[in-house]
Amino acid sequence: MTRTTDVPALDPTDPEGAIAAAAKRCSNWGRWGAEDVLGTLNFLTEDKRVEGARLVRRGVTFSLSQRFDADGPQKGWRRRTNPVHTMLDTGTDAERGVQGFPHGIGGADDVIAMPLQASTQWDGLGHIFDHGDAWNGRRAGDVVTSLGDAVTGIETVADRMAGRGVLLDVGRAIGEQFGTPGELPDGFAITPAHLEATIAAQGGTARVGRGDLLCVRTGQLTRARRSLAAGTGWGDYAGGPAPGLSFTTADWLHATEIAGVATDTWGFEVRPNEFDVAFQPLHQVAIPHIGLFLGELWDLDALAADCADDGVWEFSLTAAPLPVTGAVGAPVNPIAVK
Amino acid sequence: MTRTTDVPALDPTDPEGAIAAAAKRCSNWGRWGAEDVLGTLNFLTEDKRVEGARLVRRGVTFSLSQRFDADGPQKGWRRRTNPVHTMLDTGTDAERGVQGFPHGIGGADDVIAMPLQASTQWDGLGHIFDHGDAWNGRRAGDVVTSLGDAVTGIETVADRMAGRGVLLDVGRAIGEQFGTPGELPDGFAITPAHLEATIAAQGGTARVGRGDLLCVRTGQLTRARRSLAAGTGWGDYAGGPAPGLSFTTADWLHATEIAGVATDTWGFEVRPNEFDVAFQPLHQVAIPHIGLFLGELWDLDALAADCADDGVWEFSLTAAPLPVTGAVGAPVNPIAVK
Amino acid sequence: MTRTTDVPALDPTDPEGAIAAAAKRCSNWGRWGAEDVLGTLNFLTEDKRVEGARLVRRGVTFSLSQRFDADGPQKGWRRRTNPVHTMLDTGTDAERGVQGFPHGIGGADDVIAMPLQASTQWDGLGHIFDHGDAWNGRRAGDVVTSLGDAVTGIETVADRMAGRGVLLDVGRAIGEQFGTPGELPDGFAITPAHLEATIAAQGGTARVGRGDLLCVRTGQLTRARRSLAAGTGWGDYAGGPAPGLSFTTADWLHATEIAGVATDTWGFEVRPNEFDVAFQPLHQVAIPHIGLFLGELWDLDALAADCADDGVWEFSLTAAPLPVTGAVGAPVNPIAVK
Amino acid sequence: MTRTTDVPALDPTDPEGAIAAAAKRCSNWGRWGAEDVLGTLNFLTEDKRVEGARLVRRGVTFSLSQRFDADGPQKGWRRRTNPVHTMLDTGTDAERGVQGFPHGIGGADDVIAMPLQASTQWDGLGHIFDHGDAWNGRRAGDVVTSLGDAVTGIETVADRMAGRGVLLDVGRAIGEQFGTPGELPDGFAITPAHLEATIAAQGGTARVGRGDLLCVRTGQLTRARRSLAAGTGWGDYAGGPAPGLSFTTADWLHATEIAGVATDTWGFEVRPNEFDVAFQPLHQVAIPHIGLFLGELWDLDALAADCADDGVWEFSLTAAPLPVTGAVGAPVNPIAVK
Repeated sequence: MTRTTDVPALDPTDPEGAIAAAAKRCSNWGRWGAEDVLGTLNFLTEDKRVEGARLVRRGVTFSLSQRFDADGPQKGWRRRTNPVHTMLDTGTDAERGVQGFPHGIGGADDVIAMPLQASTQWDGLGHIFDHGDAWNGRRAGDVVTSLGDAVTGIETVADRMAGRGVLLDVGRAIGEQFGTPGELPDGFAITPAHLEATIAAQGGTARVGRGDLLCVRTGQLTRARRSLAAGTGWGDYAGGPAPGLSFTTADWLHATEIAGVATDTWGFEVRPNEFDVAFQPLHQVAIPHIGLFLGELWDLDALAADCADDGVWEFSLTAAPLPVTGAVGAPVNPIAVK
Repeated sequence: MTRTTDVPALDPTDPEGAIAAAAKRCSNWGRWGAEDVLGTLNFLTEDKRVEGARLVRRGVTFSLSQRFDADGPQKGWRRRTNPVHTMLDTGTDAERGVQGFPHGIGGADDVIAMPLQASTQWDGLGHIFDHGDAWNGRRAGDVVTSLGDAVTGIETVADRMAGRGVLLDVGRAIGEQFGTPGELPDGFAITPAHLEATIAAQGGTARVGRGDLLCVRTGQLTRARRSLAAGTGWGDYAGGPAPGLSFTTADWLHATEIAGVATDTWGFEVRPNEFDVAFQPLHQVAIPHIGLFLGELWDLDALAADCADDGVWEFSLTAAPLPVTGAVGAPVNPIAVK
Repeated sequence: MTRTTDVPALDPTDPEGAIAAAAKRCSNWGRWGAEDVLGTLNFLTEDKRVEGARLVRRGVTFSLSQRFDADGPQKGWRRRTNPVHTMLDTGTDAERGVQGFPHGIGGADDVIAMPLQASTQWDGLGHIFDHGDAWNGRRAGDVVTSLGDAVTGIETVADRMAGRGVLLDVGRAIGEQFGTPGELPDGFAITPAHLEATIAAQGGTARVGRGDLLCVRTGQLTRARRSLAAGTGWGDYAGGPAPGLSFTTADWLHATEIAGVATDTWGFEVRPNEFDVAFQPLHQVAIPHIGLFLGELWDLDALAADCADDGVWEFSLTAAPLPVTGAVGAPVNPIAVK
Repeated sequence: MTRTTDVPALDPTDPEGAIAAAAKRCSNWGRWGAEDVLGTLNFLTEDKRVEGARLVRRGVTFSLSQRFDADGPQKGWRRRTNPVHTMLDTGTDAERGVQGFPHGIGGADDVIAMPLQASTQWDGLGHIFDHGDAWNGRRAGDVVTSLGDAVTGIETVADRMAGRGVLLDVGRAIGEQFGTPGELPDGFAITPAHLEATIAAQGGTARVGRGDLLCVRTGQLTRARRSLAAGTGWGDYAGGPAPGLSFTTADWLHATEIAGVATDTWGFEVRPNEFDVAFQPLHQVAIPHIGLFLGELWDLDALAADCADDGVWEFSLTAAPLPVTGAVGAPVNPIAVK
């Protein structure tokens, strides 16, 4: 596998230089024309959807979504709160007969207020900029204003995310050697070598290539669930130390030509980030330069258990974002079928 | 086909009597045990998912979702407004360099406030009650309080809605004889006979049976789109006169043992309703008694055009509701693949 | 009275020129130092508050606020919707005993989602810019980002708006000669001469000067209320044709040295605006250049009736904006006491 | 002063009995007729407003409101979050020229989503019930449904809260003897004797009687501010241990015939509550039985400092709640003027 070679060693004192170099190596700007809004979803062709559908053998489904409610992990950073769900009408009102409808009908109805990235979500291509540049070389202010993303809003990809999914359970493959079976420790940077080792360990159904929707399980959510069950809450799950992809995977993400990649963590990439002073440097390459769709806060545990059971790491995956017009990210309930 | 027979003629002066009788004939209470929260989704078995996946031949996808934005059809009835999407961070801010992040990274982020049934959605089993009774015979006040639906919240079916979809384009099949090719007029009640005639006209791929996810196109959304294009707005699309299922389809919906049914209208059933004084009487039978999942505000136009082209009216359908804990309805971006 | 002279005639083809000229004549930039965030509220001194308090003779109060609810006039323009108020807990739940509290206590609680300028409000100094310039010569992007107004947020004036209020009931003073007693027609531009004529007609208690909080009643809200009572709704109250202050009052507003001014209309100034192609040109002078606080959607009817009765047009006015940090406008329940 | 006598000793094992007995002793049901929605605001007469206005001597104002923003104390209990303020339009957008308005005008606009009791607020009479009974003997379900409070919504008192304010700085009067000068410790129950001792210490301007708006400072907010300044956050300010009124003040609150009472704490009464198992038992007497308006989360520090300076503890107080239709509580920016 040549795709992991030729990545320079990371200089922790120079994120800006490393980002610029990676961006140059990995740029897909112009690859699909000046008007492109799909980025790597261009790799997800109709053939890939047929391939994905053919992976359905038992008809077993897995929702890869965490729930959307007030008990989620968000802590208010940059006003990212947990969803607030309230009722417009209730069963108690209906039962008491105060709703004023005829012939005994009663109803319940509800509303929600939430950040679009409060729980399981896709980052859209308008979510991250590099020095004011957005995907495909557009200026950030020409793309996303207070009115939303007028160019690459998530609605432009509403019908795209369906195809072959593949799960790399890195936590399971190498967690034990770093401390806990099935889980990577916080701060652990997953390198291309770790990804390739996981593929090798999982076998042929775990191959990763053009047009795939890749799921990477670190096991951090499993750990957070233990904490919740023990009554000690989410802790720093949202934004604190976490396992995740190393900055050095940028070239691998580019070379594999995957259509999208999702993890079971808040931030996709390892945290603390690998530079001395940095904030999500891999995002800065992956979204505006590669045009790659990133999924965060996915729940991969049940699917991973099933894959470990039957040894099949590929599946049909439909992960259709809620088409909020102009959104730079969107909630999603991804459905894997095996 | 015997399933359309034996339905009593409708007495417009007695909705309460008609509802009680239909509820008795069509009740599924207890069919899947006292603890059941899935209703007709019990019909959607793993076999049906395999069957659905096998319908993918070309890999062509269709999002059956309308957009979620402030330009939608809602008019504020019972506080059902259109979604309000606002930005937490923007590209203009990022480009101007006011965000305070290191190494040139910038970001955009957003929030939404919306009724869960503002746009394309599934009604959950806690959405409608009959004289204070909810699905499976529970009391409404034991199910849905101000804290949400503690029993049949939409999250309980997060992984269920994937299987065989089938489209009945009633607008196309019989619209012409009632005035406009491809569209049914407002106030038109679709009877079992109309459904069966559509199945017959569309041929074998349009058969409807146990575990199917049925889509019924009336054509009203097409008409609303013309109005929008002409600058005259949504008009009464949300809650006004509309084509839709007749109350007399209750037995058909029950007998077919479908898993769910969705239309391209606001209210699923014909409006004005067919009784002198009534409000959504078919809901009152379908949700609490049949345990049937109803989809509303779906966009079936592009899919219908494709089906008319290739003569294939069945497809793989994944319509995974956003798993808002305790929700009595949920937004969804349904994806059909052919 | 010399303060109404020397205002050039308005050229309807050149709003930009007229605005620039008026801005130059009326600018208060630097008047209270480079760091100022109070604008004309600098005129509202402690003496004025003592003066205001002394106007309380009978102890009669008037709330000058419209209500905040889903039945308001907003129509969604630039996402300005009516407030959506929902319950977190209800009396029906409490009465049914489902809340889980001890010793029979029950509670109701609620939330709101609303534009800050949905109903009765003050415009803050960060609300309007002139060619990217904000109050006191700051650049707009240095003042208001996605994080809010970091400089002149409404919380900076939380304790200021209390003093002498004075009502000019222009609708009552001159409405009859333009068609309807008590009301000015839509599109009617109130000039300095109209304001001075109203002062003269109302007598000594209607004098307007330094530090006053001026209320100008047009009567449009009275007309909207008749429409509501007749079942024909708010019509174009929010943003459509309306009586209001003429662009030519800019110099008068500046020369009088009032602390703030409010009207019973959506937009304060006359609509359609007086230039061929324009949008709220008086705002463009009043807020960023004069530093003047504008109130909109106030309800002056009951107060006006009382003033007409007793012939006293001045009163104690406390109009404390809700101190939302960083807000560019804020809801307010102004209280007049006579 | 006889009003502190005759209160039975509190039995910590029997909150329900104590509440029932206090409710019986203190009930104002029917005192102002069966239709009453004002409760103790009936005591706040026009004379009291004249009296309040006459207390303005220097024209100095104090906003008694905490700010409304994402950095507040709420922790999500029963979905009470901190306010989320987002922008509809920004200065960065305006400066960049992307707003599409003519003649160089630009604007900023904003929205808020928040619990009505997120920050400084008044509890309305529909906020608390006793065994399903609301103020004046109405059933809770007849008053507050999912549609809000149809009877005693806060809008019914929109114009009432203006009159004589009086501050009892209990923290200053007796804090030192319990540990910290100026502050009462968490869990400290303020009894009638403490209130009377404070009145005696403060002198004649601190007398409390019919129609007064009483402010009680515990000093807990001062302590929370120190914690914030030290970087250790709000801690348990919202709902945790706190000084506050003892359950045994119910009779005093009733006998004084005050119109309203506010504290600088989250919950008004002492926490933990004084019974073994209890939740806000004083609320259960004060709101539904006395009909008393309770203010919470007020900021009394600056006012208290001024009162300590000049020895005058009374002032003009205007505390006009935002008139959200049907609200059971409402945000307020109370303005004291001395």
